[in-house]
Amino acid sequence: MRLIVEKFGGTSVGTVERINAVADHLADKHQRQESLVVVVSAMSGETNRLVNLARQITSNPAPRENDVLLSTGEQVTIALLSMALHERGVKARSYTGPQVSIRTDDTYSKARIREIELSKIRADISAGYIVVVAGFQGVDDGGNITTLGRGGSDTTAVALAAALNADECRIYTDVDGIYTTDPRVVPVVRRLDQITYDEMLELSSMGAKVLQLRSVEMARKHHVPLRVLSSFKLGDGTIISGTEKESHMESPLVSGIAFQRKEAKLSLLGIPSSPNALKVVFAAIAEANINLDIIIQNLGAHGATDLSFTVAAEDYRLCLEVVYSVGKKLGVERIEGESDLAKISVIGVGMRSHTGIAQLLLETLVDQGVTTKMISTSEIKISVVVHESEMDRAVLALHTAFHLDDEDEVNSSNVLQIA
Amino acid sequence: MRLIVEKFGGTSVGTVERINAVADHLADKHQRQESLVVVVSAMSGETNRLVNLARQITSNPAPRENDVLLSTGEQVTIALLSMALHERGVKARSYTGPQVSIRTDDTYSKARIREIELSKIRADISAGYIVVVAGFQGVDDGGNITTLGRGGSDTTAVALAAALNADECRIYTDVDGIYTTDPRVVPVVRRLDQITYDEMLELSSMGAKVLQLRSVEMARKHHVPLRVLSSFKLGDGTIISGTEKESHMESPLVSGIAFQRKEAKLSLLGIPSSPNALKVVFAAIAEANINLDIIIQNLGAHGATDLSFTVAAEDYRLCLEVVYSVGKKLGVERIEGESDLAKISVIGVGMRSHTGIAQLLLETLVDQGVTTKMISTSEIKISVVVHESEMDRAVLALHTAFHLDDEDEVNSSNVLQIA
Repeated sequence: MRLIVEKFGGTSVGTVERINAVADHLADKHQRQESLVVVVSAMSGETNRLVNLARQITSNPAPRENDVLLSTGEQVTIALLSMALHERGVKARSYTGPQVSIRTDDTYSKARIREIELSKIRADISAGYIVVVAGFQGVDDGGNITTLGRGGSDTTAVALAAALNADECRIYTDVDGIYTTDPRVVPVVRRLDQITYDEMLELSSMGAKVLQLRSVEMARKHHVPLRVLSSFKLGDGTIISGTEKESHMESPLVSGIAFQRKEAKLSLLGIPSSPNALKVVFAAIAEANINLDIIIQNLGAHGATDLSFTVAAEDYRLCLEVVYSVGKKLGVERIEGESDLAKISVIGVGMRSHTGIAQLLLETLVDQGVTTKMISTSEIKISVVVHESEMDRAVLALHTAFHLDDEDEVNSSNVLQIA
Repeated sequence: MRLIVEKFGGTSVGTVERINAVADHLADKHQRQESLVVVVSAMSGETNRLVNLARQITSNPAPRENDVLLSTGEQVTIALLSMALHERGVKARSYTGPQVSIRTDDTYSKARIREIELSKIRADISAGYIVVVAGFQGVDDGGNITTLGRGGSDTTAVALAAALNADECRIYTDVDGIYTTDPRVVPVVRRLDQITYDEMLELSSMGAKVLQLRSVEMARKHHVPLRVLSSFKLGDGTIISGTEKESHMESPLVSGIAFQRKEAKLSLLGIPSSPNALKVVFAAIAEANINLDIIIQNLGAHGATDLSFTVAAEDYRLCLEVVYSVGKKLGVERIEGESDLAKISVIGVGMRSHTGIAQLLLETLVDQGVTTKMISTSEIKISVVVHESEMDRAVLALHTAFHLDDEDEVNSSNVLQIA
């Protein structure tokens, strides 16, 4: 008998009607002899309601108590969904994170799962129950309630699937899969049937909202096949796994194009040769709590170094100040900065065994009259930085150049998965 | 250092403002070196909200899941109150029922407490924390969440006070103590400074809403001094304990007068002598799920028995049918019934050592032209059944006759405690 872990997010269980719809779906699968462990989030709006209650009391809620508060959201959903299953004559039993001993470390609000006690779940599955587990929460060694932070319910689902050695972990959401890019920019995007963990990680790190990095990383580590699909319409969604399907004899060069607006670039040119110079620069930026994204360094023939990097636009002014100050001390020749930029990443495991990707990318951009401000490559990704005003044009052209366009006009209601 | 358990009900923590007020109160006591364990209910309205969610899904919620659902209400309150205490610089730590191992049996929705694990609470108290515990909930041996049923938070508070051997258990509510009777009937009621467990039990069994029978019984069993006081205004409330205070050299004959409207009386007259006759009658009534209140039986000289009893008015018609049917089989001479009745009980431990109470009671009623339909006595209580239309007059006269009237006009906002 196949064992499947299914996870339903906040909008999928956002109303009593939606919970009933999920119960219908599960009852149907249960009748078809699938063993099911279900992970649910808080009903959409519920977490905000709780956060607002806390905010009325304090602007700085004690982290331990905040987790006690927020974890009630999922507890309400597991109870309601289990009731709905009972109402359909299906045996079901709910568990909070602490009740099934989802053991975490003690970092409130972003705890990490250490281990899961499976005896109750296994016994219930054997006895024909659907097991309904509250996502997003666990318990530390001291018996304190913890929450897992953003995307925590996805992480709960993948962790359970890994621990139970489930056949598949399905993440039901409000989009019906992973797309080649954002349909708001490219009208002919295509839903991908399959994608690798690595590609998904690259997409996620570029702001794909469907899955959090953490849950994809965990699925990859434990070889859990992960499927993203819609809880509102039928379809097989996109399966994320370690290997490309055998059926794809010729795997595509590129699986998708991700992008990020509101980027800025800073350059320190002619940093005098000194073993400590770069260390001093990075330390000053870290101290200002600024995250760097792409970093390019180049040692010139005369011994001085050029350093360029990108930051989020909102950090641009502050970063410029930091860099001027540290640059002056180090005797840097020149400092340059530019905002209103965007980053485009072309992603695909097929790149590993193919050459000419960078060339096709650059040719396409040149043909469009788009200037590349920076280029950075990794094994399965090429990123370029361009002016924000040229981004849409560039993404459109690249989507066509890498054969990602759909033959059929895409349904524009299949909204985006990439921010 | 004194250890006090304080319990705040739903209206006392019904809004963020009320929670802040409770936190102010606790912070003040904490500063004055009182060790505090606080038990809270769900914010008023919250339990109804949850019940309504469940009702939209099923008319018959699975009991285990219903307890999972309802227990979130108190969990929200403990988190918010602990945050409010932190905001005031007071160390506080919240615990759900399962977290402090309030072990119960496995009767969902009306579980009974078996034992409480005190190590965490004791350690926190020693470390200067205010311990905030969710009322109304516990955990069974299988790790399932249970709830304690009506008045469950009072029971949690008394159980904690008993287990911790606390100096006092204070129940904060929306009335400022226990009164001699209902101010809606008698305008000059007096708040009692003290009352015994037994008297409180008699009052509670007559429908006093301030405390549930169960928590008073538990306090009595474990000798926990129980104080009822208002969370909205200052005052010492009423202390409920085992003995009358020494200061009361001459304890009052009567502490209070309770009453219940909507009663009915049924009589089976001339039940032929048979060892099984009464058993058959009571069995038939029990099978119809009707509760009897006062029961009077009298064996006549000719060997036949007369039996009278009272039931709630809503059960009157059904009970009459049952009694006719069983009476016919048994060959009962006559069956009589009367509704629109009321029960009045005069309660006081002083009765034990005094005579003439019944006489004073009857004289007073006769003077008022009130006909007594039934009389029943116990060690600390005399109950009479009268026509409902005569009840108010009777209670007023008895309140004066037993010297319960207050010298000062009572503040009519000190609402009733008796239904």
